[in-house]
Amino acid sequence: MGDLAGQAVEGTLYYAPYAEFERVKDANFAAKDRAAIFADMCRLNALYMIARAGSGHIGSSFSSMDIISWLLLEEMKGPDVYFSSKGHDAPGYYAALIGTGQLDFDLVHKLRQIDGLPGHPDVGTLGMVTNTGSLGMGISKAKGMVLANRLASRVGRVFVMTGDGELQEGQLWESLVSAANMGLHEIVVIVDHNKLQSDTFVKNVSDLGDLEAKFRAFGWRVERCDGHDLNAFAAALASLEGDSRPKIVIADTVKGKGVSFMEHTSLDSDVAMYRFHSGAPDSSMYRAAAQEIMTRLNERLSATGKADLELETIDRPRSPAPPATAQRLIGAYTKALLNQAEKRSDLVALDADLILDTGLIPFREKYPNRFFECGIAEQDMVSMAGGMALNGLLPIVHSFACFLSARPNEQIYNNATEHTKIVYVGSLAGVVPGGPGHSHQAVRDISALAAVPKMTIVEPSCEAEVESLLQWCVDEAPGSSYMRLISLPWEIPYTLPVDYKPKYGQGVVLAPGTDIAIIAYGPVMLTSAFQAAQVVAGKTGLSVKVVNLPWLNVVDKDWLKTILPGCKHVFSIDNHYVIGGQGDAIGRTLAALGAGIPHTCIGLEEVPPSGTNPQVLARVGLDAASLAITISNALRSSKQA
Amino acid sequence: MGDLAGQAVEGTLYYAPYAEFERVKDANFAAKDRAAIFADMCRLNALYMIARAGSGHIGSSFSSMDIISWLLLEEMKGPDVYFSSKGHDAPGYYAALIGTGQLDFDLVHKLRQIDGLPGHPDVGTLGMVTNTGSLGMGISKAKGMVLANRLASRVGRVFVMTGDGELQEGQLWESLVSAANMGLHEIVVIVDHNKLQSDTFVKNVSDLGDLEAKFRAFGWRVERCDGHDLNAFAAALASLEGDSRPKIVIADTVKGKGVSFMEHTSLDSDVAMYRFHSGAPDSSMYRAAAQEIMTRLNERLSATGKADLELETIDRPRSPAPPATAQRLIGAYTKALLNQAEKRSDLVALDADLILDTGLIPFREKYPNRFFECGIAEQDMVSMAGGMALNGLLPIVHSFACFLSARPNEQIYNNATEHTKIVYVGSLAGVVPGGPGHSHQAVRDISALAAVPKMTIVEPSCEAEVESLLQWCVDEAPGSSYMRLISLPWEIPYTLPVDYKPKYGQGVVLAPGTDIAIIAYGPVMLTSAFQAAQVVAGKTGLSVKVVNLPWLNVVDKDWLKTILPGCKHVFSIDNHYVIGGQGDAIGRTLAALGAGIPHTCIGLEEVPPSGTNPQVLARVGLDAASLAITISNALRSSKQA
Repeated sequence: MGDLAGQAVEGTLYYAPYAEFERVKDANFAAKDRAAIFADMCRLNALYMIARAGSGHIGSSFSSMDIISWLLLEEMKGPDVYFSSKGHDAPGYYAALIGTGQLDFDLVHKLRQIDGLPGHPDVGTLGMVTNTGSLGMGISKAKGMVLANRLASRVGRVFVMTGDGELQEGQLWESLVSAANMGLHEIVVIVDHNKLQSDTFVKNVSDLGDLEAKFRAFGWRVERCDGHDLNAFAAALASLEGDSRPKIVIADTVKGKGVSFMEHTSLDSDVAMYRFHSGAPDSSMYRAAAQEIMTRLNERLSATGKADLELETIDRPRSPAPPATAQRLIGAYTKALLNQAEKRSDLVALDADLILDTGLIPFREKYPNRFFECGIAEQDMVSMAGGMALNGLLPIVHSFACFLSARPNEQIYNNATEHTKIVYVGSLAGVVPGGPGHSHQAVRDISALAAVPKMTIVEPSCEAEVESLLQWCVDEAPGSSYMRLISLPWEIPYTLPVDYKPKYGQGVVLAPGTDIAIIAYGPVMLTSAFQAAQVVAGKTGLSVKVVNLPWLNVVDKDWLKTILPGCKHVFSIDNHYVIGGQGDAIGRTLAALGAGIPHTCIGLEEVPPSGTNPQVLARVGLDAASLAITISNALRSSKQA
Repeated sequence: MGDLAGQAVEGTLYYAPYAEFERVKDANFAAKDRAAIFADMCRLNALYMIARAGSGHIGSSFSSMDIISWLLLEEMKGPDVYFSSKGHDAPGYYAALIGTGQLDFDLVHKLRQIDGLPGHPDVGTLGMVTNTGSLGMGISKAKGMVLANRLASRVGRVFVMTGDGELQEGQLWESLVSAANMGLHEIVVIVDHNKLQSDTFVKNVSDLGDLEAKFRAFGWRVERCDGHDLNAFAAALASLEGDSRPKIVIADTVKGKGVSFMEHTSLDSDVAMYRFHSGAPDSSMYRAAAQEIMTRLNERLSATGKADLELETIDRPRSPAPPATAQRLIGAYTKALLNQAEKRSDLVALDADLILDTGLIPFREKYPNRFFECGIAEQDMVSMAGGMALNGLLPIVHSFACFLSARPNEQIYNNATEHTKIVYVGSLAGVVPGGPGHSHQAVRDISALAAVPKMTIVEPSCEAEVESLLQWCVDEAPGSSYMRLISLPWEIPYTLPVDYKPKYGQGVVLAPGTDIAIIAYGPVMLTSAFQAAQVVAGKTGLSVKVVNLPWLNVVDKDWLKTILPGCKHVFSIDNHYVIGGQGDAIGRTLAALGAGIPHTCIGLEEVPPSGTNPQVLARVGLDAASLAITISNALRSSKQA
């Protein structure tokens, strides 16, 4: 097992079993050597977990791996706790907790699986002391923990890992002030200073300047060291002892550390895109990476006379690529935006470090002067857009829906009170992908923005509708608008009428029917609704209409009336919590009409789990099978009532 | 008119007319003397405006007055713009624009009046380039303006005034980074460093530390000067010229500058509460303050051989104090919180620089170790509360509803995903008081938080219900909760049943009736509803039921059924935008029941204006008279339908 080359089967994955961790732990290594070997074993297992899950964050799991290993094995005492504020380094931390035996070993196979290990940390997992994945909250959380400890006369340090891209979030700087004023010396922040954020180099996105000077100016004790030199890291920690100030260790690290071609230092240029921030490696990359880690591990073991590692293997689960016919809304959005930009020279695009995921690279290439990379600074981005709109531009503001709707919520409202026009575009909308977990599942964004005056919320059901809705937002919207975009490629069973143009507040019938109506939006929900309608029709003999209503907070009353004749029950399907979703806009309109037709809102009621897309849709009741059951049950009980 | 003493009539107000501003402008003063005299004339007029309006911010209007006068009279050239990021210094800035003739002089009489001058700046007023009042957004806005200017090849500096309490907001630090990286040298930030925030000294709330070092570490050019020494201020500005960095001038100022007893330097101790941050002076204070400014002005004029000022006078409009029988929910909340704190030693209270307005002073006095002053740092406060809750405490988190629901919106959701219990208390809820304007009118908070899982939103209708609802939130709520509190003392025409206890999702009938039902909550809306019901009943002969439903995002379906028999129309009255208000929860439940009874949601549809409370309620259609008309019209048209 020592050499994967030649014997590696395409699709075979390798991981170190618990017995091997115990062997290394019990061997008479120097502390530093043991931690380094442990870290590499965790790298191997984190790589396995990510490859198996099909997604995860390799780059920062690897950059922080040595530090985490040292903390867990050598530094932390009984009451001390550790958590990662950025949270996307979770696979590495999980691997470490599995390696020390603090987490059940079987979880190594369950990253991003339901009832397994969530994509970002959640307190439902043993050893996770707080939920992260929303950036910049960690130091504030740590302060609350320390203050609670002090009130209860408990002791213990709180180690908080932050990213460096994360340092662009205002809350982080907000949180430094009172920690210094209150002398919360129990807090030790470690900046995993790997110099890259999700897309590329921090310095190219939003340069952090003189980090040490900044933290010192905020009254914190600051040390700096090589985050892969464990002697240096241990010395930095030791030097902090007895200081009454809260502490920061800036640990200079390499993103992707431990696999030569994944290390950011291997990038050709400092404007290159880094490929291992998130996602999973393909088979050949996986093999090469695992081989490199293995080789180094065995060299280290044999240098001290130890036997090679005994690895276990497993076939990589096949995850078929989405079919070529799947609807790709982000790609369609890229084209639609370029079309609008060509027509309107006042159109500018703003991004918060998600240029790849939001589909903006072609826009930046074509219109470099009209593109503004704001870094992970959503509040600043939104208020900047406000200033631009006041001075005559049409800003299109991009981020993930979960962040864009919530972090700059007050800023979006402030802009709206100025009666300017801004288009907000939130991608990664809805409950799937389920892998990243609740910090990234945007199922509260409609509610968070629906009441903003003159704000129209839309969600396209397919590529064609992306183009027409963006055109509407740019040219026809009465005020600002928020476009919600499904990022997953999705195969859809319906087509829009050839001559279809979205009309404000009006839907379009995708499947005719007279007895019951199912109203939904977006490719994921409409697909579930469409398939559920067929099941229900088959089972009950009822004629089931399926309607695409791309307007999420406005319903044309007269249009709705045309849907109702003969209708015995209306169902709304929300890729969102029931409260505040499209169902509420439909319910409000139905109630105003006094229609007297039962209306059932189907959507999320609880915080969604992390898991594969089919797992998550089934668990929250939004796959076709669950919908068919819910609808059938509702029909039965309204018949009985 | 030179000496008010002896001749001042109780209730007489004084202001300098436009002709006097012109006389001073045309006189051959040295620039510095002219600006100082102009500033004092503006102080006199701002004092008049605030006294007449009955509210406004004297302290920071006065501390920034010399700076603003210098900028307007001497520094700013054609394309330059100025705005205040804090915004509550608006009366001073209005007075200056009125003095220069840029605003119509008649507006001097219309501060906080509808169609007059809003409590915080709004772009609807000539000369206001952006809406402020929500802190920390100013530099971001300025960046957007400058970038738009550059795209259009426009020039011009953007002067931004910030407070010093405002520097506690994370967005401010977030906004510094890209301004430095992009070299936005057109931006000149002036920190009105008056050392106090709303309640007391900044250093006691959340000390800012070494401000100069902080700003320099963020890559900005920093100068510091005495903000009342106009030569020094002019020299500081001059020294900035040609620097390619964005600039900050830290202007050391005195809060309340220009009236000895209003100056913060007159405070007995540095833990004293400052009394002139907001609100209006009483008659004797007004007279003494006006006298002091007048005396100094006339001394300055006579020193250069000029005649005394000719002032105009007006009787101070009487604003009767609310009756002793008015419901005071904040006072009731103070008592309720103390009661809960006595029972539960795990209860802690957090505040964001509004200790007086949120009623927390008695709590701090009784439980100093369980009180946490977080400064103007709502995101940090909420995440700290999250950390405290994870470590066993029950945090009660306080701010104004407008800020608490929006600024830390993502942080509240993150806490909720941890399934801990936290009570959020938002005061100053609803559309009145109307004086401060839309940044402070919390009419979107229900919507912003309603979809957070297991979050229950409640609003008490009277003092007694404050106690029982807080007890429910602390002991019985299934998760976290958000209590919305009306801050205005309000005379109510109803009483709760003697044995009333709030039941989850259930309302209580305040006025019996069978034909139509009006459901509302909180003292302001229930009073309007109660009075409108009498008007409608009198006009139509219908029997009108009025229901208090203190649960804003949850309605018990079975309870609602008991309200409906015989009911021909249900009305929901929201002190909130129609979208996302309580009406949606009722509409959702009615639609689910398929009740077939028309339901009309009444609430705000547009951004509310600033004005007196009766003006605002009438304009948005939520006073009794407007409600009666809306209800009658709805009944007529549903009869015709």
